[in-house]
Amino acid sequence: MKVLIIGGVAGGMSAATRLRRLNEKAEVVVIERGPHVSFANCGLPYHIGGTIEEREKLLLQTPESLHARFNLDVRIQTEALKVNPEEHIVVLKDLRSGKTYEEKYDRLILSPGASPIRPPLPGIEHALTLRNIPDMDRINRHLENSRAEQAVVIGGGFIGLEMAENLVHRGLKVHVVEAGPQVLAPLDPEMAALVQKEVVKQGIKLHLMDALHSIEDQGKRVVLKSGETIPADLIILAIGVKPEVALAKDAGLKLGERGGILESDTLQTSDPDIYAVGDAIEKINLAGEAGLIPLAWSANRQGRLIADHISGRTIHVGHQLGTAIVKVFDLTVATTGLNEKQLQKSGRPFAVVHTHASSHASYYPGAETLSLKLLFNRTTREIYGAQAIGKEGADKRIDVIATAIRGGILADELSDLELAYAPPYSSAKDPVNMLGYMAENLLEGLPTVQWHEVNPEDILLDVRDPHEYTRGHLRGAINIPLNQLRSRHQELPAGPITAYCQVGLRGYLATRLLRQLGHEVRNLDGGYTTFKLGRPDQVTEPVKS
Amino acid sequence: MKVLIIGGVAGGMSAATRLRRLNEKAEVVVIERGPHVSFANCGLPYHIGGTIEEREKLLLQTPESLHARFNLDVRIQTEALKVNPEEHIVVLKDLRSGKTYEEKYDRLILSPGASPIRPPLPGIEHALTLRNIPDMDRINRHLENSRAEQAVVIGGGFIGLEMAENLVHRGLKVHVVEAGPQVLAPLDPEMAALVQKEVVKQGIKLHLMDALHSIEDQGKRVVLKSGETIPADLIILAIGVKPEVALAKDAGLKLGERGGILESDTLQTSDPDIYAVGDAIEKINLAGEAGLIPLAWSANRQGRLIADHISGRTIHVGHQLGTAIVKVFDLTVATTGLNEKQLQKSGRPFAVVHTHASSHASYYPGAETLSLKLLFNRTTREIYGAQAIGKEGADKRIDVIATAIRGGILADELSDLELAYAPPYSSAKDPVNMLGYMAENLLEGLPTVQWHEVNPEDILLDVRDPHEYTRGHLRGAINIPLNQLRSRHQELPAGPITAYCQVGLRGYLATRLLRQLGHEVRNLDGGYTTFKLGRPDQVTEPVKS
Repeated sequence: MKVLIIGGVAGGMSAATRLRRLNEKAEVVVIERGPHVSFANCGLPYHIGGTIEEREKLLLQTPESLHARFNLDVRIQTEALKVNPEEHIVVLKDLRSGKTYEEKYDRLILSPGASPIRPPLPGIEHALTLRNIPDMDRINRHLENSRAEQAVVIGGGFIGLEMAENLVHRGLKVHVVEAGPQVLAPLDPEMAALVQKEVVKQGIKLHLMDALHSIEDQGKRVVLKSGETIPADLIILAIGVKPEVALAKDAGLKLGERGGILESDTLQTSDPDIYAVGDAIEKINLAGEAGLIPLAWSANRQGRLIADHISGRTIHVGHQLGTAIVKVFDLTVATTGLNEKQLQKSGRPFAVVHTHASSHASYYPGAETLSLKLLFNRTTREIYGAQAIGKEGADKRIDVIATAIRGGILADELSDLELAYAPPYSSAKDPVNMLGYMAENLLEGLPTVQWHEVNPEDILLDVRDPHEYTRGHLRGAINIPLNQLRSRHQELPAGPITAYCQVGLRGYLATRLLRQLGHEVRNLDGGYTTFKLGRPDQVTEPVKS
Repeated sequence: MKVLIIGGVAGGMSAATRLRRLNEKAEVVVIERGPHVSFANCGLPYHIGGTIEEREKLLLQTPESLHARFNLDVRIQTEALKVNPEEHIVVLKDLRSGKTYEEKYDRLILSPGASPIRPPLPGIEHALTLRNIPDMDRINRHLENSRAEQAVVIGGGFIGLEMAENLVHRGLKVHVVEAGPQVLAPLDPEMAALVQKEVVKQGIKLHLMDALHSIEDQGKRVVLKSGETIPADLIILAIGVKPEVALAKDAGLKLGERGGILESDTLQTSDPDIYAVGDAIEKINLAGEAGLIPLAWSANRQGRLIADHISGRTIHVGHQLGTAIVKVFDLTVATTGLNEKQLQKSGRPFAVVHTHASSHASYYPGAETLSLKLLFNRTTREIYGAQAIGKEGADKRIDVIATAIRGGILADELSDLELAYAPPYSSAKDPVNMLGYMAENLLEGLPTVQWHEVNPEDILLDVRDPHEYTRGHLRGAINIPLNQLRSRHQELPAGPITAYCQVGLRGYLATRLLRQLGHEVRNLDGGYTTFKLGRPDQVTEPVKS
């Protein structure tokens, strides 16, 4: 059995080493176009920023080390020019010698990855992208040679924000330009607003709803579609990636609607002797829709599964949750499953709860606000997804919810998860338990209203204490503190009420109380905090002196 | 409907507030013997140590605040003397006035908690225990008045170690005396060894397999069973708690074999109008056995469920995993489910895997070793439990596994959990994924051996590099580095081989390789690291100069 693998990072290398573990006799050849295999691509921005000081730490393996340990035939600086599926042959080119030669295979694994999108705009050649070690070295050289003071990052996605943060760490003044209305598309807008606040707080100039028009003056000036110009010593392009499918397409393999390689649920392409893995393939998300999910976890996982399948094992590739996480300065931002935008598009009947909880017991030092959003089916109670943003414990809560989704745990059953509690780590009711309780309340019919649904005709009732109300409230809201509501509820005008507090808990208590006292009332989910994130123009705040 | 609740902390208060949320008209009376309700009992040690500076932070509610918000009738410093189930009456005593009176109820909730065990030893009256705010104040006064320099903590359980750490923070020299062979009974011994190393490293003198004999010299000297004496300015007794069942027993309610109040799966005692919650009741663990699980999570959860049941809702109380966590200086120690000791006792066929992984990508700064142990059924693949110890991310991994258990995810399916990966948070294969892969390998028949099972007749093969071997190895082991094994395996003597490396990964690769080369071989699970923790006397280490 001879297995040829094209692409020696993440998925490709995961397949190669697993093949060897299962079969000492297989011939395994790994072809890599670049000068490095199995490097730490997720670490690249952090070497630029100086957090990872030693470049060598990113180079996890060499062809020699892989040969010594796994008896792999790894050929770097070698490009696959053409695949001939009928004859089971790949045409290869040694980029150092220029020599072209053929290599036969019994099974072929394509792990070509995805390349940064470069729109054909004037001066685009001056924008640098970050995909591999040579790219990183190029950016570092540019920074060293140009004594750069100001950088423009085009794109407010994961890589864009990681680059922006690391350039700030390196001492640069940084602009981020994002064509959409928010950063980090996997988040819903009210959650993204938290990230935007952090980015701005850290001194970054954020240009939303604007895009690159051209790069002028030999790469020293960025012109945006709005007409704004920004002087730039360094321009990073990070508006997304597209699957590298030239080889697959040329070989006649089927592509999907999103432009990725189409696969069976055993990770085989339209030619059963050819597998594909990683950022170049289309994956099925929780909504059952095909999409590109360029994440390291799935590349590594699928590489191993392909090796299992080639070795005669049964494999099962399910839906991809697309669990993702990114550090944005002091914040951790994590998501799993589907967001509100995706659910709206898919037409599923969903419900939402927000909480802004304490990351651990509030009386123990270091507790920080952790904002969580849970999306679930209003009828079946199935969990669709979650988003978490905070300084501590966001990763933990998203991992718990991703596990709950995988285990078929229903939204209201999150209240029954026995999570580890001691004051430095959580509360006796963990924020994930709280989401479960909130889902239970909603499912039993206790009405809530989302930040974007607030009806201006409603009586807006602020149940916080007067000093909180004074610091800012919904435009037109009246204030009766929760603790006075039993005795003062008669003061409320007739008509439906939207009650709210700071984060939603007191508003919930007010809703329970007022309903029992005969009022028609709904609780503003996530309270003033979520509302203000989503609709900052609809609140009244005192002018800061 | 009139509900009387005896005990105003955790479970009792959780029931009271939930009752009010569900029923504005119910009469809810909460009786509390002490001067405080709803205080943060898990925070008490941290105020003694100074981490929580303000005492007020521990006082979460007052009778007045609970009345204002929830219209509760909270009576502190009131003791319940007797329950008369037939007449639905409780005899109460106001401890301030000395007045005794009766209170009727429709439903009664007992939340008496558990009290520290005080063995009847000479001088035991000089030992202080920590259960509530007055206890904490007493310890603090003692520390202030005596200018204490040395403390002895009797008991190496969760509270004992929390107290020991906080007394060290307060500047005391601390001894911990533990009658058993290890600290923290929920851990298995090789995992507890990691905690013991940390405790000793932090300057604590640990006395294992020794116990309190007597306290002499007016509480200034501790005498142990071994005959050793320790001068002491402060003696803390934390050898465990026993459920407070006097009231329940006197009322004729059934008790279980472990001495706790026996309950139905709707949290009712043998009298259906009397419920009980918290540390005083017996709970069913994952092995289906009744036990005392004195943890805040379940007290809070059950309090709410009781209120639901009283209000006519259907509730379901399942098995208790007993997920628990404790900070021990720089370490986090967390467990869920059953440990090896419990599984052996229950006679279940279980398998074990250990890993010592990196808490996040090893090339990103701050990565620390995270030691994990997973226990699961060898046939059904059901997860039984897990233990985690590390400086970072131990809480996250135990929460994920506790969720997986609840969701019925099988041991080998942990490999398929899509956990959030970016270099500051995890690796592309999270340590929990690794546990899943290890379980999969074991379940498919790849043999491992546990640290306590190593057969001295086996050929012990150390596949680490020579400099690692030289730093310490299994007594009698030979050294062939993994990367040379393909070419040098003929050097191996005939006979079964136990291969090992530092943590188990290279040993696994060696096992795969040697089996394919025709050898009979097993991998030492958890490698040299686990072995040395469990059997420190069986390794050869160079004498430190």
